Amino acid sequence: MDTKLRELKTLLCEASDFRSANSVLGWDQSTYMPIGGGSARGRQIALLARLAQERATDPQIGRLLDDLRPYAENLPYDHSDAALVRVARRNYERLIKIPPAFIGEMYQLGADSYNVWSKARTENDFQATQPYLERILDTSRRLANYFPGYEHIADPLIDDADYGMKATILRQLFAQLRRELVPLVQAITSQPPIDDSPLRRHFPQAGQLAFAEDTIRRLGYDFNRGRQDLTHHPFTTRFSSGDVRITTRVQEDYLSDCLFSSIHEAGHAMYEQGIRPEHDGTPLGTGTSAGVHESQSRLWENVVGRSRGFWEYFYPRLQAAFPGQLDDVSLDEFYRAANKVERSLIRTDADEVTYNLHVMLRFDLELDMLEGKLRVKDLPEAWHTRYMADLGVQAPDDRDGVLQDVHWYAGQIGGVFQGYTLGNIIGTQFYATALRAHPEIPSEMQRGQFNILHSWLEENIYQYGSTFTADELVLRVTGEPLSILPYLMYLKTKYGELYSLV
Amino acid sequence: MDTKLRELKTLLCEASDFRSANSVLGWDQSTYMPIGGGSARGRQIALLARLAQERATDPQIGRLLDDLRPYAENLPYDHSDAALVRVARRNYERLIKIPPAFIGEMYQLGADSYNVWSKARTENDFQATQPYLERILDTSRRLANYFPGYEHIADPLIDDADYGMKATILRQLFAQLRRELVPLVQAITSQPPIDDSPLRRHFPQAGQLAFAEDTIRRLGYDFNRGRQDLTHHPFTTRFSSGDVRITTRVQEDYLSDCLFSSIHEAGHAMYEQGIRPEHDGTPLGTGTSAGVHESQSRLWENVVGRSRGFWEYFYPRLQAAFPGQLDDVSLDEFYRAANKVERSLIRTDADEVTYNLHVMLRFDLELDMLEGKLRVKDLPEAWHTRYMADLGVQAPDDRDGVLQDVHWYAGQIGGVFQGYTLGNIIGTQFYATALRAHPEIPSEMQRGQFNILHSWLEENIYQYGSTFTADELVLRVTGEPLSILPYLMYLKTKYGELYSLV
Repeated sequence: MDTKLRELKTLLCEASDFRSANSVLGWDQSTYMPIGGGSARGRQIALLARLAQERATDPQIGRLLDDLRPYAENLPYDHSDAALVRVARRNYERLIKIPPAFIGEMYQLGADSYNVWSKARTENDFQATQPYLERILDTSRRLANYFPGYEHIADPLIDDADYGMKATILRQLFAQLRRELVPLVQAITSQPPIDDSPLRRHFPQAGQLAFAEDTIRRLGYDFNRGRQDLTHHPFTTRFSSGDVRITTRVQEDYLSDCLFSSIHEAGHAMYEQGIRPEHDGTPLGTGTSAGVHESQSRLWENVVGRSRGFWEYFYPRLQAAFPGQLDDVSLDEFYRAANKVERSLIRTDADEVTYNLHVMLRFDLELDMLEGKLRVKDLPEAWHTRYMADLGVQAPDDRDGVLQDVHWYAGQIGGVFQGYTLGNIIGTQFYATALRAHPEIPSEMQRGQFNILHSWLEENIYQYGSTFTADELVLRVTGEPLSILPYLMYLKTKYGELYSLV
Repeated sequence: MDTKLRELKTLLCEASDFRSANSVLGWDQSTYMPIGGGSARGRQIALLARLAQERATDPQIGRLLDDLRPYAENLPYDHSDAALVRVARRNYERLIKIPPAFIGEMYQLGADSYNVWSKARTENDFQATQPYLERILDTSRRLANYFPGYEHIADPLIDDADYGMKATILRQLFAQLRRELVPLVQAITSQPPIDDSPLRRHFPQAGQLAFAEDTIRRLGYDFNRGRQDLTHHPFTTRFSSGDVRITTRVQEDYLSDCLFSSIHEAGHAMYEQGIRPEHDGTPLGTGTSAGVHESQSRLWENVVGRSRGFWEYFYPRLQAAFPGQLDDVSLDEFYRAANKVERSLIRTDADEVTYNLHVMLRFDLELDMLEGKLRVKDLPEAWHTRYMADLGVQAPDDRDGVLQDVHWYAGQIGGVFQGYTLGNIIGTQFYATALRAHPEIPSEMQRGQFNILHSWLEENIYQYGSTFTADELVLRVTGEPLSILPYLMYLKTKYGELYSLV
């Protein structure tokens, strides 16, 4: 058994190493690659993706998994060998349905499209991206059709990111959430608006980056096993347990973008850094689902990073980091500014209350496109219509409209947005559980200490990587299935207080 | 024929793309990788190297080359298809002698050793590197032994970098050169020393980098198809014709390091950027030999970058870039300082006259190690002994001694140093030819214009990539075989004047 297990791990590790090498190429493409490098880079990314797929679907992996099944099934469910064989089989059975050449094509398209989007976004030129997006829609449909028998064409794509989820379940869940959020947003926006002008003063880039780095280091992001760089669109990428990188962006006239993006990505990255190193190079060695991943980023960004306790410690430091700039702003005014709720245009900058409206409309648009109800050429208009209907705002252009998020342009339509809202829900479920176990977490936070929370997350969530599915993990950690109640309770309490709602 | 040629190009391009992808991993390892990333990175680099080797030795390439031989041999020698088939065959026949697993092992060792060296160099700890260097010596010997029938064990390694060269030829050539250089150094160092203290004032890093970038942009390095970053040891790396990157380093108390390193690497990079894009992904799409490559870096660094004409244009700009710092230094004093000849410790900082003494002693030490005459553990002492004998100086430690150059520690002993001296020789041969064709080059230079020289190099050298061997290229461009005479003439004229020798 030992020999077979070792052989399996070697084969899986090689497939994983191809993916990781490709992630380095992708990271470089977004951070430092000169413009001239784009075309060869797309070809190289496609090649490595195809190779990774070939390796991951090597029939020898299938044979070894068959041979190891009796061994694995006799182990406790959470034994790492049992989990390895279980998760490897799930991945293998999914992957063998997709031809490597198709994967190569999809990555080539994604890389080409990314290059076009980078330029088009700056130039507010949706039309330049349209032919790419049309091909991406077609490719996403083809990908789904490698998994016939679905209920909704988005299901295979959703399932890949959030195992076990389906369009119908999500539509119900999101409808339920929307029913609660719409009146909450209504109630809040009928109150006098919070003044967030303190966040919109001049904060030089270097100072913002330094403050963000100091902050996330204190939260627990390990710079010996990672780094932060600048990109259009912040992201986290894992090359190994010893190298999990994040990116951020800076607006010198808006403090929130860099700081909260950095905390958000550090949340993702601490999850990846916290996975047991022994899982490196195995299918267990990465976060278990998009939703659980976002639960970590959104928990740190919002539940922690936008809490009053957090700012009790950090606000004097922020004031010191930008001398003179915030002297006239009290902690309370700052805390309120950082939590201003408003009907706005940019998802990544949105407050906690309206955020899910941004996500859910994208989710709906994805499904409409996949179903063939919405054509790519009509997407900008549909975008504006939905923003007007759901948020009551209209972007002046596509740059702050349909071009704002990289996701679709990077190669896939379908399955890429639901994770954010799932993350908000799961994150508060986890946090409520952590609080029950350690009621001292908020007071630790006021002292700038995050060790209890970080250790609890590591112990209960991070270390396992993909050992458990999202559903299993939520049940195991919180004792309950996925539920929107803790999230609604959290929002209503926090924003009820901030906006003096009754 | 067309189909076969296309298939051949596809296969060669995939092998090349694996190497390029690996170069991205290597670049990242040297520039931005956090310390925790080292171990997985080594494994990933080894994997890609093995794959590249597997692809490059695919028997289908051999079959296609056989099928294409009659077609290629009926074309003119310099036709790009003829060259492609010719050079691809040469590479293929070389590569099939080396097992892919050995390549993987060699790269793994190189990556591990590089990580150890990076730390050991800072800590002046040769002992930490010794076991790695011993394994590298062993691996280099094994590599050579895949090519039995050599005259000297270093020959296959030399031949790989500088096709057609051998230890005996080089020993003769170097002996000839040494006979001329030793008395020249003697004569110069018996003159009153030049004062180079103006170069050793305080020059802040940001200003040095900005000045270096402006300079190399003006020489012709295209930042849309490249970039410059910081590393311990400067290097050039090519990912594609659209992405050729360089690195540099900065000493704030020594102006020459960053500036001349940048020009040196830009020389390499302009060669790579100037290769016809159609050669991208083929065996023609890279510089033809280490010697020709160094001819370009050394030509730009020294013949151009340390010439008086060059500084007529750049010196006022340098003064302006560091306000107040060089006001009391005349152009002439600066020019002399930038060309000070001295018996010194660091190869990359050495002046043009002593430089080859640094190279030749490394070459000799390489041969001694490969022959088994010198053990790795005795290398630091042998280093000190040779420096004392050849240059009359002794490093205070190994950091400025045997640990200074990355080459051996990066994975190979043998074949890695001769190119520098060959480059000095070939570079002046080329330059003398360019001058005959365009006597106006020096006066253009005085006006900060480098277009005539750059275009001449592009036309005669760059565009061809590996189409011609070094020997063929030298003969074709200069009308003569490799000769040290132009180089000696250049040195004697320039330094005779600088040091008032008769």
